[in-house]
Amino acid sequence: MYERIKGFRDFYPEEMQSRRQVVNTVEGTAKRYGFREVGTPALEPTEMYVEKSGEGIVEELYAFEDKGGREVAMTPELTPTVARMVVAKQQALSKPIKWVSTRPFWRYEEPQQGRFREFYQTNVDIFGSSEPTADAEILAVAADALTDLGLSASDFEFRVSHRDILGGLLAAFNADVDTREAIRAVDKREKVERDEYLRLLTDAGLADSQAIEFDDLLMTAEADLDELIAFAGTDRVEAAVGNLQAVLAATDDFGVREYCDLSLTTARGLDYYTGVVFECFDSTGEVSRSVFGGGRYDDLIEGFGGQPTPAVGVAPGHAPLSLLCRRAGVWPEEAFTTDYYVLTVGDVRAEAASLARTLRSEGHVVETDVAGRSFSAQLDYADSINAETVVIVGERDLEDDELTLKDMDTGDQIQVPVEEFPGDYDRPTFGDYE
Amino acid sequence: MYERIKGFRDFYPEEMQSRRQVVNTVEGTAKRYGFREVGTPALEPTEMYVEKSGEGIVEELYAFEDKGGREVAMTPELTPTVARMVVAKQQALSKPIKWVSTRPFWRYEEPQQGRFREFYQTNVDIFGSSEPTADAEILAVAADALTDLGLSASDFEFRVSHRDILGGLLAAFNADVDTREAIRAVDKREKVERDEYLRLLTDAGLADSQAIEFDDLLMTAEADLDELIAFAGTDRVEAAVGNLQAVLAATDDFGVREYCDLSLTTARGLDYYTGVVFECFDSTGEVSRSVFGGGRYDDLIEGFGGQPTPAVGVAPGHAPLSLLCRRAGVWPEEAFTTDYYVLTVGDVRAEAASLARTLRSEGHVVETDVAGRSFSAQLDYADSINAETVVIVGERDLEDDELTLKDMDTGDQIQVPVEEFPGDYDRPTFGDYE
Repeated sequence: MYERIKGFRDFYPEEMQSRRQVVNTVEGTAKRYGFREVGTPALEPTEMYVEKSGEGIVEELYAFEDKGGREVAMTPELTPTVARMVVAKQQALSKPIKWVSTRPFWRYEEPQQGRFREFYQTNVDIFGSSEPTADAEILAVAADALTDLGLSASDFEFRVSHRDILGGLLAAFNADVDTREAIRAVDKREKVERDEYLRLLTDAGLADSQAIEFDDLLMTAEADLDELIAFAGTDRVEAAVGNLQAVLAATDDFGVREYCDLSLTTARGLDYYTGVVFECFDSTGEVSRSVFGGGRYDDLIEGFGGQPTPAVGVAPGHAPLSLLCRRAGVWPEEAFTTDYYVLTVGDVRAEAASLARTLRSEGHVVETDVAGRSFSAQLDYADSINAETVVIVGERDLEDDELTLKDMDTGDQIQVPVEEFPGDYDRPTFGDYE
Repeated sequence: MYERIKGFRDFYPEEMQSRRQVVNTVEGTAKRYGFREVGTPALEPTEMYVEKSGEGIVEELYAFEDKGGREVAMTPELTPTVARMVVAKQQALSKPIKWVSTRPFWRYEEPQQGRFREFYQTNVDIFGSSEPTADAEILAVAADALTDLGLSASDFEFRVSHRDILGGLLAAFNADVDTREAIRAVDKREKVERDEYLRLLTDAGLADSQAIEFDDLLMTAEADLDELIAFAGTDRVEAAVGNLQAVLAATDDFGVREYCDLSLTTARGLDYYTGVVFECFDSTGEVSRSVFGGGRYDDLIEGFGGQPTPAVGVAPGHAPLSLLCRRAGVWPEEAFTTDYYVLTVGDVRAEAASLARTLRSEGHVVETDVAGRSFSAQLDYADSINAETVVIVGERDLEDDELTLKDMDTGDQIQVPVEEFPGDYDRPTFGDYE
């Protein structure tokens, strides 16, 4: 007996059906916004992650040397891959490029609630627009996906921040501060003790008093954002604040403003973000970590050797998303659904198979006996797969040109002339013949 | 600029859309037969393949030691994984267990036409029935999937064989023959020279004359199968021939007999098959290799430490399947489809976003400007995504409470009162307002 690898999961049909429904909903929302599905490889050159994705990811790679001597890594995220794909066909692709896909990714990290070594994400990205409308459309797709799942404004919130406000403020304190390290410190603000957090900021180059003052600035309310411009006195912060305000205004046009809250302490862990960043949280706090996040990464394509191409995206992870949906009571029921079970009594295999075929051609889910079982064993099986209707095809019934329909909810059954089932009905059940 | 890894593929949206359509068709067929989707890991313990799957696969594994010192392999096929999953929940699962899933697999082998290092398969399996009906249902799902794709009896054929007829005949020649090696030789019959093929048979333990006689027996026609029973004179061959005949008879009940031809030279490469095996071929021969295959593997679950559980399955590979579909002219058109592009003129962002939202809520694919572009640039973009209808929302039009609808096929346009679009129509186009 073999053991599944730690941090990896098997999804049996009941759970998988609910997961599929959620994936289809999230993808469906993105597709209605005109995002187009792409298919991407599970392996990429390891070097693609070493320079670009921040050390946090690289330490966690499933990386190895393949039989041809190439250093390869199982993809820990999609963004570098789609950036590579954009660069490869930059001239041919009509802009804005709007892509969506759902697939697994892999990171060697310690499994915990809602966090696995193999995890599924739906990535939604726009390449080729620096407009605030593009950031807002990403927020709108994310919000609509969640409301399409049945979640409401009391269930979740998007904490919206801006990398360049953080970077601009840091630069206003000290031009030599290590912005990357300081932003990583902000990302850890809620995860470590305050002393540790302030130490990370001073390690990045802020003086002790500056670290405290910087942290105070992150508490600035949305109505007071102009104070940050006054504090910094730089075009950079003015532009960044203006951009954030424009994105929030555009979310209003998209009808999703109510889900967005300013939160400058939101920083996102990955190095490549450049502008608006955001994270989705459970409003009740029951799911304690960020559900997912996204943001703008305008420099990545150029860093990959392409022409300068602004980009913005979001990537709902399905494990934390399922925690949120379960908490909110909107996780789809994990149960089989079956329209018909065609039950055979005696030597009626050809008739039963033909009837099953007819029902399937109408798009119904139809099972029939493939195990040579007794009447009662077949009925038990039909019950186990939640068959709505059992159609009993019996040798004697057939002599009278009749079938029996059994409603599995009530147990009621009725005899029906063969030629009247399914007849002209789209999806006939017991009730149609009562 | 980073390079994609050899043997791996990027699927851009146009091609991906066609692939998704084909995957949905194949899965849809299986789901109507009551096969339920499962989700499975990309990594398994390497040892799971070393003993069970035959040396052919093991040499081609993407296997490595993970950071925790475990020997792991990227899954080269699904069967061992689903066998492991059946064993893990053997008591809880209602039988027959009918599972389907589509996902990538990985083998380090030389890429060639229709064959990649990363490849996608839809696996369809039944566990818990040894009845010929189960084998026939697998053949029926495969045949119906292909006809649902638009293929016909003149496009493809299933070459059906039986491992235990081959094994029983070999044993009748010589009880000490290495059945596994001899069956691998049969699998290579069409791929190597005849001398080489016969040498492989003699290497497996047949005398020269026996190798030739054995090969002659493989040419036996369906009507003459009883001659094999007479030749061998064993219960084993009699049972195997009877089983094959019963499966073929059952495919008649399922309405797919016409796609099935007897072909005892079909053997399948994997070691774990025990009964009926089959391969799908392009009837025209233009796609020269097997498109996909399947068969019965009754011993695998027990070999994995489970209770004896018969099993049968099939796994269409999407790369060779696309070759067949393209050859037959039924590959779905690779093109964007978009219901509406909402084009903005002037400061109408809020109105345009609201209209787009309304249309999306009806399930339509709707794009709107997220790049701040001019009228003509927006129209070019709408054309590039094959928008069926462009809805022009202009500042001046809005003052008169009007929108403009443009039919992108004909270029015709018409002004429509704001309140009449979309009005009561499900999916209004130019023609509804002419």
